[in-house]
Amino acid sequence: MVETQEIELRGHIIDSGIMMQLMDRVMDLGGNFEILVFEVGKKKTDTSYARLRIAATGKEKLKAILSEVHRLGARPVEVMDVHLVPAEADHVVPKGFYTTSNHPTQVKYNGEWIPVEAIEMDFLIVVDPVKKTAKAEALGKIRKGNLVVVGEQGVSVTYPERPREQSTFEFMHGTVSSERPSETLIAQIAKEIIEVRKNGGKIAVVGGPAIIHTGAAKALASMVRNGYVNVLFAGNALATHDIENCLYGTSLGMDITTGKPVMGGHKHHLYAISEIMRAGSIRKAVEKGVIKSGIMYECIKNNVPYVLAGSIRDDGPLPDVIQDVMAAQDAMRKQIEGCSMVLMVATLLHSIAVGNCLPSSVKTICVDINPAHVTKLMDRGTTQAIGIVSDAGTFLPLLAQQLEIQSQAAPGKK
Amino acid sequence: MVETQEIELRGHIIDSGIMMQLMDRVMDLGGNFEILVFEVGKKKTDTSYARLRIAATGKEKLKAILSEVHRLGARPVEVMDVHLVPAEADHVVPKGFYTTSNHPTQVKYNGEWIPVEAIEMDFLIVVDPVKKTAKAEALGKIRKGNLVVVGEQGVSVTYPERPREQSTFEFMHGTVSSERPSETLIAQIAKEIIEVRKNGGKIAVVGGPAIIHTGAAKALASMVRNGYVNVLFAGNALATHDIENCLYGTSLGMDITTGKPVMGGHKHHLYAISEIMRAGSIRKAVEKGVIKSGIMYECIKNNVPYVLAGSIRDDGPLPDVIQDVMAAQDAMRKQIEGCSMVLMVATLLHSIAVGNCLPSSVKTICVDINPAHVTKLMDRGTTQAIGIVSDAGTFLPLLAQQLEIQSQAAPGKK
Amino acid sequence: MVETQEIELRGHIIDSGIMMQLMDRVMDLGGNFEILVFEVGKKKTDTSYARLRIAATGKEKLKAILSEVHRLGARPVEVMDVHLVPAEADHVVPKGFYTTSNHPTQVKYNGEWIPVEAIEMDFLIVVDPVKKTAKAEALGKIRKGNLVVVGEQGVSVTYPERPREQSTFEFMHGTVSSERPSETLIAQIAKEIIEVRKNGGKIAVVGGPAIIHTGAAKALASMVRNGYVNVLFAGNALATHDIENCLYGTSLGMDITTGKPVMGGHKHHLYAISEIMRAGSIRKAVEKGVIKSGIMYECIKNNVPYVLAGSIRDDGPLPDVIQDVMAAQDAMRKQIEGCSMVLMVATLLHSIAVGNCLPSSVKTICVDINPAHVTKLMDRGTTQAIGIVSDAGTFLPLLAQQLEIQSQAAPGKK
Amino acid sequence: MVETQEIELRGHIIDSGIMMQLMDRVMDLGGNFEILVFEVGKKKTDTSYARLRIAATGKEKLKAILSEVHRLGARPVEVMDVHLVPAEADHVVPKGFYTTSNHPTQVKYNGEWIPVEAIEMDFLIVVDPVKKTAKAEALGKIRKGNLVVVGEQGVSVTYPERPREQSTFEFMHGTVSSERPSETLIAQIAKEIIEVRKNGGKIAVVGGPAIIHTGAAKALASMVRNGYVNVLFAGNALATHDIENCLYGTSLGMDITTGKPVMGGHKHHLYAISEIMRAGSIRKAVEKGVIKSGIMYECIKNNVPYVLAGSIRDDGPLPDVIQDVMAAQDAMRKQIEGCSMVLMVATLLHSIAVGNCLPSSVKTICVDINPAHVTKLMDRGTTQAIGIVSDAGTFLPLLAQQLEIQSQAAPGKK
Repeated sequence: MVETQEIELRGHIIDSGIMMQLMDRVMDLGGNFEILVFEVGKKKTDTSYARLRIAATGKEKLKAILSEVHRLGARPVEVMDVHLVPAEADHVVPKGFYTTSNHPTQVKYNGEWIPVEAIEMDFLIVVDPVKKTAKAEALGKIRKGNLVVVGEQGVSVTYPERPREQSTFEFMHGTVSSERPSETLIAQIAKEIIEVRKNGGKIAVVGGPAIIHTGAAKALASMVRNGYVNVLFAGNALATHDIENCLYGTSLGMDITTGKPVMGGHKHHLYAISEIMRAGSIRKAVEKGVIKSGIMYECIKNNVPYVLAGSIRDDGPLPDVIQDVMAAQDAMRKQIEGCSMVLMVATLLHSIAVGNCLPSSVKTICVDINPAHVTKLMDRGTTQAIGIVSDAGTFLPLLAQQLEIQSQAAPGKK
Repeated sequence: MVETQEIELRGHIIDSGIMMQLMDRVMDLGGNFEILVFEVGKKKTDTSYARLRIAATGKEKLKAILSEVHRLGARPVEVMDVHLVPAEADHVVPKGFYTTSNHPTQVKYNGEWIPVEAIEMDFLIVVDPVKKTAKAEALGKIRKGNLVVVGEQGVSVTYPERPREQSTFEFMHGTVSSERPSETLIAQIAKEIIEVRKNGGKIAVVGGPAIIHTGAAKALASMVRNGYVNVLFAGNALATHDIENCLYGTSLGMDITTGKPVMGGHKHHLYAISEIMRAGSIRKAVEKGVIKSGIMYECIKNNVPYVLAGSIRDDGPLPDVIQDVMAAQDAMRKQIEGCSMVLMVATLLHSIAVGNCLPSSVKTICVDINPAHVTKLMDRGTTQAIGIVSDAGTFLPLLAQQLEIQSQAAPGKK
Repeated sequence: MVETQEIELRGHIIDSGIMMQLMDRVMDLGGNFEILVFEVGKKKTDTSYARLRIAATGKEKLKAILSEVHRLGARPVEVMDVHLVPAEADHVVPKGFYTTSNHPTQVKYNGEWIPVEAIEMDFLIVVDPVKKTAKAEALGKIRKGNLVVVGEQGVSVTYPERPREQSTFEFMHGTVSSERPSETLIAQIAKEIIEVRKNGGKIAVVGGPAIIHTGAAKALASMVRNGYVNVLFAGNALATHDIENCLYGTSLGMDITTGKPVMGGHKHHLYAISEIMRAGSIRKAVEKGVIKSGIMYECIKNNVPYVLAGSIRDDGPLPDVIQDVMAAQDAMRKQIEGCSMVLMVATLLHSIAVGNCLPSSVKTICVDINPAHVTKLMDRGTTQAIGIVSDAGTFLPLLAQQLEIQSQAAPGKK
Repeated sequence: MVETQEIELRGHIIDSGIMMQLMDRVMDLGGNFEILVFEVGKKKTDTSYARLRIAATGKEKLKAILSEVHRLGARPVEVMDVHLVPAEADHVVPKGFYTTSNHPTQVKYNGEWIPVEAIEMDFLIVVDPVKKTAKAEALGKIRKGNLVVVGEQGVSVTYPERPREQSTFEFMHGTVSSERPSETLIAQIAKEIIEVRKNGGKIAVVGGPAIIHTGAAKALASMVRNGYVNVLFAGNALATHDIENCLYGTSLGMDITTGKPVMGGHKHHLYAISEIMRAGSIRKAVEKGVIKSGIMYECIKNNVPYVLAGSIRDDGPLPDVIQDVMAAQDAMRKQIEGCSMVLMVATLLHSIAVGNCLPSSVKTICVDINPAHVTKLMDRGTTQAIGIVSDAGTFLPLLAQQLEIQSQAAPGKK
């Protein structure tokens, strides 16, 4: 028995590829479609409008197809209110709950469209019937009685359109290769960073310990000092080796200025942690003059907040590390709010964690020596992402250098 | 002012390379040596003995050199008691504390040698003067008043000798390459596993979610069922996708039997977590018949303990996940006790975490598609390690197949 | 001064993404467009038709834009004859010569459309005015007087449409990941291979020496013996180590059945080459009974042609190796003719070489342990390609096993 | 039946690890040993001497063991003349021929030790009885009647000792990691290069096309111009894209200064090749003013010879490319003569080719973004090698910058 449903789509649906993806998905899933109306924008600045009749054998199949195309922004011509079901108990949510994408989302409630706040991928939507607000919420945060959206009915997604102006993010998007002009890219990223800062945008850096091992701590520290980093996400290792570097000039026991292991160097990271434990925290160690340079030092001195998330492989850890990973996620989420750019360097774990929390509108730059890591980060649904296969130890110094050159060239900057 | 100290070394110090490493380190660090006695074992089963006079300019330098060679098992001819200093406060340890290697270690206390229990790399040594015992302890676990060993004095390390019989672990050690006969290696690993089981040895598996994504869950589940896995270390992702696979036949929304994404598949992992939350735990979900197959199911059914350690990138997480990473480490340590073999598959994070806790005598096998990951795991000081660059999705099924073939060929096995 | 040109497009231009790419390219290049006619196929089996007016400032820019969209199959509404210019001398070709894509191409000559034979990427088109034929030709093969097509005028490209039925090639296309169900993929590839063979299709294998090192020679040899390989492309190394394996049971001196290096093994590959030099060729060595098994042996015995292309790193080389790389390319091209499937295993160099010569319609499967290699092979413009990140040493044995199982299950096969 | 043979070893056999390796190999191969004399150098500058009795069951096994330890420099106490056998025909060499290592080698002929000229790995040794000279020769170059050394008798290898002074090459040797201080390493390599040049040493660069794609052509060109490159080894791709970059400002169609693809860019590399074909050669193109900058331009202008070796994947190729790979090898060998340092950047194929021809005494630096490539290059028996996992596009500009800074700091340089 063939079932049908009319849907509509609006926007730059042709050149953003949305129309194509929709047709693809319908066919992949064994459905069929008929185009009822197709008003094509005549010029590149015009939007288009399409109405299609989707057909499939059986209600289940049709529902599944509609569920898929829903994520592309397609919605029934007639939209009904969201279907809300209260959670039976904490964490015990209604079956068939709606799971969010990382795109701007609205729900129809009492006949009105209300935006879903704090949108983030793979969350549920909870509606507050009193305040008439909707919020994206993690599965683990759902409490008994929360009104959870079930099914796609009444939910509308605004799929990101392709930006019309040509930015670095635009032309590079989606490709991951080590064969691109590194210095050119670095100059362009410096330009984007300066632009974001000029517009008052907030920049986050997510970094792994290889930043210290490859000798790029100085470069990142200077970026913090010069105001290009508004929040730092990392783990115990980055902070520990940064402090080890400050105290002993080594990273994992290797002298950063000679590249050679030093006598007793294997003890340095533990000694570094021990010094911070003695002081009580990184901030206190800075205040007591124990730490006098480095990334963490600059964060403290310049009031740049940081979130050090614990991991199962941690030594110590430093007192500043948040050992409960869910608490660390919450701290991370709080700091991510309002970020308009994220620079991820040499860490897959923390970059994926941060990436999971980002709305699709945030620009992200992923730098890693491993192309598979970069590809993995690019695959996670962020469309505003550039992947760069490069060496943190050469990338960051060249970036810091470019930021200095370009900011001096452009007076009235920052 | 040249300072000198006589040290001695005993064992298979030539063919195990210890003598060479010692000479190397002394020269690297700018010292000099004179060989006073060198009694070479005449046959390959004989041990050798050497006494050397180490020389360096200045006491500090000599001390540093002695500290380095100490880790190779060299010790002063006359050994004094360990130097113990009480910790001033919790986590506040005496400066210059001794940091452990992962080799068997003894301390001289009241003129007697006592073994250091629970040895693990980068720990401190705490001596109990009443019980006359010594124990390796994490920096973060040191409590006020603990008597902590400071300096190398009175500490003796038994550096691992090269085994004389030729095992797979022996000839493969240290090399990481994707260009080795995969099927041959798999057959040999199967043989080692069967051997360990026959001798009552305990085998741990550390696994990443790629095991599920690559379709190897069935193979690992069969290994659990057949008694080849005594404990499982993993994270939220492996367990979630294993349960997703059981409930929906998918992993990350991809149908494992067709390799194709299924309709609504992106919701499956959240739905899987939600089902376990509803049941209360994985065990309860098994008991209620919610989960009927898979790795986690077999663990529950066969009373194989597992430790699911939380990470900052977790969705959910499952109720069984230990969210506090230090608590997770403790749980891991407890289960590692007594393991004689660890198989690490497709996870860098958890493998390093487990590797950190292993004494040097435990055999480890690291399998990853990424040669850099394998190299990193091999670099962490474990000498009993084989690294294999292969695909979990083909490796584990072939291993499970070999285990079946070989165990049938050898009656009276397991 | 704004210049304009009307173009048209026909086919599954929406769901194949062609329309979108065209709009993209025009905008990327700073042009503008107006849609004059857009007849959308109502059902998924219908084709669509579009006529657009492309606009740009200046003739040069317009020409450049038209040149780009030309490659997507767009052509002026009124098409004139190709512009032909004779080559001044051997290799000295007219400036602005047309360079081919790997898609089916036609040229308009004397008012008639004639197909371009032997299409291959980055070639020139030479028209024979007597025979009224057109042929794609390498730059290095152009002879004085050849009539070479200059500019896009009169050239029409048939851009490949997305196939409507769902094959493995379809759904997998474009993605490269090590996180997919390996055994499932292998079973599907086996199915495709059996299908191709059933339909009388020709299958080429391109292989690197890692096939031998990882112990997969036996599996590939069985595939040759069972008729699944119609031509083999490789280099000196694959053949040498295969013969070394046959003569001494080793590959690069390592015993394939134990994984251990054997005494004097480092000499084996040279000794193997020496034996073939003594015999005169691989065929003669087989005939004289010097070689009795292996991949090369099966090629000889089953009359499967092979092309062993020389490379700068060759030892020896074997007498069968074509030392002149251009002669080797010609030999390769001759054998590629008529292939409908190519399986590339563990070699970047030879795979790119073969890939360069393939029309876009040939199905290709690339298997490599290195994801960057797979990505690179997928990037080279072939749309009918699947990339698999796996280990040759486990992939090929499992594939050979699947071929056996499936061919027995399907009587009347091959 | 146990057979025995006395052998002796001399030099820094303990701290260079030679003694250990010898014992290892004997035991690995199932033999036994007794140390008869062991005179240990008392100080680190003294040499040692050992005499051992090697024992094995059966003459064959003993011979095999002796053959292995021979490569470590061990030789019978009584050395007889080499055993020479004439080649029956061209390429048809006596069975059991000796294969060379890349270490300095001598043969005993008529009771006198004569050095083997042009030593290179995996060659044969041919003795000229008239001139009383010995030369390493490729298998494919052996002519009828050549007197070829068979067996190890009368051949003595000088295994490289560990250098006693600490250079970058020394402390870095053998490790491959992306986690080392990049800028520090680059500064040290610059220092070594300047040192080599000051001493009149010859420096070779082996480069892949990624140098151009990543935007590092300018840096390498400046190194050629400033006299830091004495010979260049590359393929068609590096030269083609360098010339494309000079003519059109692009590499593979991507604008190097913006990182964006340009209109018609896909034609540029063919157009570049066509221009050189028109001119006749790169030199002529420089002379005619067609090429005015870039790596190849600087080579021509500064009389730096280059060898462009053909490969099966070549487009064109340029007239300067040597299409016969064996001829290219010969050209390469001729230019390698006298090199004291080789810098390999972003090419596995050409680096292995060059590496194969190098004596073990030549310092080599391998830079690649792919750690597996670096590991592979390091594995090929060269002990004087540093591997660096980095990005050519950032590495070379920083190296060129360091060379400039350091050469200015050191007046009287070059």
